[in-house]
Amino acid sequence: MIEIQQESNYTPAGNKKTFKYRLYEIIFKSDTPAGKRFDLLLIFFILLSSLTVVLESLEFFHTNYSLYFRIVEWILTILFTVEYAARIYCIRNPKSYIFSFYGIIDLLSILPAYLSVVLAGSQYLLTIRILRILRIFRILKLNRYLAESRYMIRAMQNSRIKITIFLSVIFSSVLIIGSVMYFVEGHVNDGFSDIPNSIYWAIVTLTTVGYGDISPVTGMGKFLASMLMILGYAIIAVPTGIISSEMIAGKKEDVEQKKFAGRCRHCGSSIHELDAVYCYKCGTRL
Amino acid sequence: MIEIQQESNYTPAGNKKTFKYRLYEIIFKSDTPAGKRFDLLLIFFILLSSLTVVLESLEFFHTNYSLYFRIVEWILTILFTVEYAARIYCIRNPKSYIFSFYGIIDLLSILPAYLSVVLAGSQYLLTIRILRILRIFRILKLNRYLAESRYMIRAMQNSRIKITIFLSVIFSSVLIIGSVMYFVEGHVNDGFSDIPNSIYWAIVTLTTVGYGDISPVTGMGKFLASMLMILGYAIIAVPTGIISSEMIAGKKEDVEQKKFAGRCRHCGSSIHELDAVYCYKCGTRL
Amino acid sequence: MIEIQQESNYTPAGNKKTFKYRLYEIIFKSDTPAGKRFDLLLIFFILLSSLTVVLESLEFFHTNYSLYFRIVEWILTILFTVEYAARIYCIRNPKSYIFSFYGIIDLLSILPAYLSVVLAGSQYLLTIRILRILRIFRILKLNRYLAESRYMIRAMQNSRIKITIFLSVIFSSVLIIGSVMYFVEGHVNDGFSDIPNSIYWAIVTLTTVGYGDISPVTGMGKFLASMLMILGYAIIAVPTGIISSEMIAGKKEDVEQKKFAGRCRHCGSSIHELDAVYCYKCGTRL
Amino acid sequence: MIEIQQESNYTPAGNKKTFKYRLYEIIFKSDTPAGKRFDLLLIFFILLSSLTVVLESLEFFHTNYSLYFRIVEWILTILFTVEYAARIYCIRNPKSYIFSFYGIIDLLSILPAYLSVVLAGSQYLLTIRILRILRIFRILKLNRYLAESRYMIRAMQNSRIKITIFLSVIFSSVLIIGSVMYFVEGHVNDGFSDIPNSIYWAIVTLTTVGYGDISPVTGMGKFLASMLMILGYAIIAVPTGIISSEMIAGKKEDVEQKKFAGRCRHCGSSIHELDAVYCYKCGTRL
Repeated sequence: MIEIQQESNYTPAGNKKTFKYRLYEIIFKSDTPAGKRFDLLLIFFILLSSLTVVLESLEFFHTNYSLYFRIVEWILTILFTVEYAARIYCIRNPKSYIFSFYGIIDLLSILPAYLSVVLAGSQYLLTIRILRILRIFRILKLNRYLAESRYMIRAMQNSRIKITIFLSVIFSSVLIIGSVMYFVEGHVNDGFSDIPNSIYWAIVTLTTVGYGDISPVTGMGKFLASMLMILGYAIIAVPTGIISSEMIAGKKEDVEQKKFAGRCRHCGSSIHELDAVYCYKCGTRL
Repeated sequence: MIEIQQESNYTPAGNKKTFKYRLYEIIFKSDTPAGKRFDLLLIFFILLSSLTVVLESLEFFHTNYSLYFRIVEWILTILFTVEYAARIYCIRNPKSYIFSFYGIIDLLSILPAYLSVVLAGSQYLLTIRILRILRIFRILKLNRYLAESRYMIRAMQNSRIKITIFLSVIFSSVLIIGSVMYFVEGHVNDGFSDIPNSIYWAIVTLTTVGYGDISPVTGMGKFLASMLMILGYAIIAVPTGIISSEMIAGKKEDVEQKKFAGRCRHCGSSIHELDAVYCYKCGTRL
Repeated sequence: MIEIQQESNYTPAGNKKTFKYRLYEIIFKSDTPAGKRFDLLLIFFILLSSLTVVLESLEFFHTNYSLYFRIVEWILTILFTVEYAARIYCIRNPKSYIFSFYGIIDLLSILPAYLSVVLAGSQYLLTIRILRILRIFRILKLNRYLAESRYMIRAMQNSRIKITIFLSVIFSSVLIIGSVMYFVEGHVNDGFSDIPNSIYWAIVTLTTVGYGDISPVTGMGKFLASMLMILGYAIIAVPTGIISSEMIAGKKEDVEQKKFAGRCRHCGSSIHELDAVYCYKCGTRL
Repeated sequence: MIEIQQESNYTPAGNKKTFKYRLYEIIFKSDTPAGKRFDLLLIFFILLSSLTVVLESLEFFHTNYSLYFRIVEWILTILFTVEYAARIYCIRNPKSYIFSFYGIIDLLSILPAYLSVVLAGSQYLLTIRILRILRIFRILKLNRYLAESRYMIRAMQNSRIKITIFLSVIFSSVLIIGSVMYFVEGHVNDGFSDIPNSIYWAIVTLTTVGYGDISPVTGMGKFLASMLMILGYAIIAVPTGIISSEMIAGKKEDVEQKKFAGRCRHCGSSIHELDAVYCYKCGTRL
């Protein structure tokens, strides 16, 4: 939604393209050759930045190549800062960008580098740059994946109420069973020493993850855990059923749109009945 | 079902609303502004009560803020007791409420506080108040979630027999494989020292939870475990298939009900187009 | 199939029912009051027998109530032996019962008790009696669950080839990835010390069970394990899709059979076309 | 695709079949009795070879039967080498085989044995022979499983974009949550000491495998882990929905193709009943 707004954000005065508008086209749009090249370059730098964050966390790289990482980090930071400034400069309404979801992510991922100059021991803070990876979705959004994404998002939106009910059942189940397990195992098992931990265990169990860092030891606890497992194993069918039925409905619509029989020559209505003799709108004989 | 009964439970004599009836409307109904406000207030207190139970179980809060928790607990207990009494007072047939599912939950969640005065060491007993969270479903039931809930419940009711068969297969499988594992691993592996524990392990494995607190050590045990895992991995498809097919059938009914617009008075053809003006078969104006 | 054979196995000579035939009706059929009572009694004894096996495995019961278990065990063994003999006596073709699936189970579940007299230390052998629980399916088969069971079995039979391909992919994946992990982790990780163990680990991982008794320690091993997990997480969709599509197809058939428009008065063919004017078989005007 | 190319690769000059062509028919085709026998023999040797690899990895067999394994290994290597040479000899365009997927696998699975003569300590290298099991798919491809396989592969191809989006969401989620967990737990929990390990943990959790070799210890870490588990538990519905809807669409096409019997020559109505003798609309004899 924000993206669409931004695109109509800038209507050039007359036909002559100013530098600002040309920059806008390159940075915000992706249907020109320059815009596409810019997007590919951006994806490359985002992936490079993410790789840097991941590798720098490794003891080996951190110890031996600290200097190189520092250099790459600063080059990337400067590049992304320039890009951020350019975005603000060339858009007509900067606020619509600055306070958008991706505007905040852009800012968040350049700030830590500057903060690391002021604050010491900000190694962990630099991790925040990984959020930059989310920007790839913005870039991908502008191409042919858009239609399919919308299709899947619509399926989820249609099932909003069903998903809410499903999540309510999940949360109530883990809350109640977590509390009951605290009641049953709390005094003999350290893993259930408080309700938040018991709820954490219930989520680990219901979702069939099952770390085993906490597991019941009493007979009653094992019985309740078994019930929770079977519940978790069975109700996974519910979100699956929801999404499946929405996707099938979406697919059918597509198929039916392809099927339709023709158009009335007189009023132009689409005729869906294959054996129609008269137009259902104007009564013209077909 | 119970709810519906309760709503028709009280027909006011004449048009003048007595205090008792007005109270009934506020507490049991939710279509008046006062009723809605009461419901929201109730949800707030239920969530507050649940939060109290969860936080109090934490060592830190329990040690440092014990007094505050005691105060909040008693205020909430008195409020819920007043509500419980009011419900009994204003309903025409109190038994229909007292012995209903939610009536019992209401009682169960106020009792522990009073019992804690008489009995010592009832810290764990107070956990029972968490059941109060179930009441949120009663409140939500009265709004637009109702239709969707029914839809999902109907899907499950339609598959009652299929689900029974599925659960029978699950229970027999874990019973038999649990016993066989006791036979195979019992004398070398402490985790399989009796059949109930072996069945517990079989449930942990079949549902793909896999804590790892009990795991096979012999070759034969590992082979049987592998078979059980693949079984569990494959038959998850069955409940999913059941729920999916029911949901799709339900969805189709909805779509078809929306589609079917009426019939032509002249030739009797069904008119599927909602905006049809002429019959598509005989051309008669509808 | 076997059941149906057995039912038509015995046609009484004339109308007078012999003792043998009356016994046959009670034991093998379930549509008479006596037959139903026999089935319920049998289910009760099967569940009691299973419960005995489960409880006897517990240290506490085994030590303290050994004598009572021995008594119950012998009473049940004698009862099931009498039943086994009666089944052979009253059926016309005893071989069709003796060598049937349930006939073998009946024999297997009475043998251990007699063997325990001859052989010492047969505690584990007695576990085999738990197989008796499978007989409940035979009893349930004769009632209304039959239709639904068949429905689900047919769905699986229709997908036979798809399921075979799916299982082949599973087995090849765990075989290859198990071997590769032996190659990668074998020399540093005891859990991958031979290929059978590595395959066991691969099954534990692919099916998302994840005990954690064996887990990769090298970077390469963790990377391969991650790939296997995502594979396992994604291809669970395949059996689900198979069963769902079969169940939906089955459901549609049911719905369509209910929809059908009527029958031709002349030749009796069912007319499925709602707007049919002539019978499609004999050409009679409807 | 490659297979089909190969089959049309060799057109015999005239009707007389040369030795080379007869060999080609036996090795590459499977519709002659000799071709079928060759395929069965090949499957037997492939399974024997795989079994050898698996058993040899076991300490017990490796120590006691080393010589026997060496002999079987060399016999199999020579057989597969002869087969490899024969394939190159009898095909018209050897390159199309040598550089095909299966050609490379054939070569890879005979090379290790020869390398083991030159290089010492190649015990682990021999594991590569297990790849030979993949060749079974080539053989199976040529029979009736082909149609069903294609059906499933088509379903996956149709959902290519949806699956790409799904995998992008998965990878971004594990990357971001893995990094955040490194930030949250890194300084207190050895399991999250670097981002690659945190990502590994995130995959283990999202896919609901849950080994438990790494698990969160802080409250915040447990909270984030819970969110990730619920995400993983819920989005499994997406690939399931994708595959289900594709399979149902594929199934419907099949059913519709079987259903449609023809059209009435007189009035042009479609006749859906396969055994129709008269048109259901105008009564004309078909």
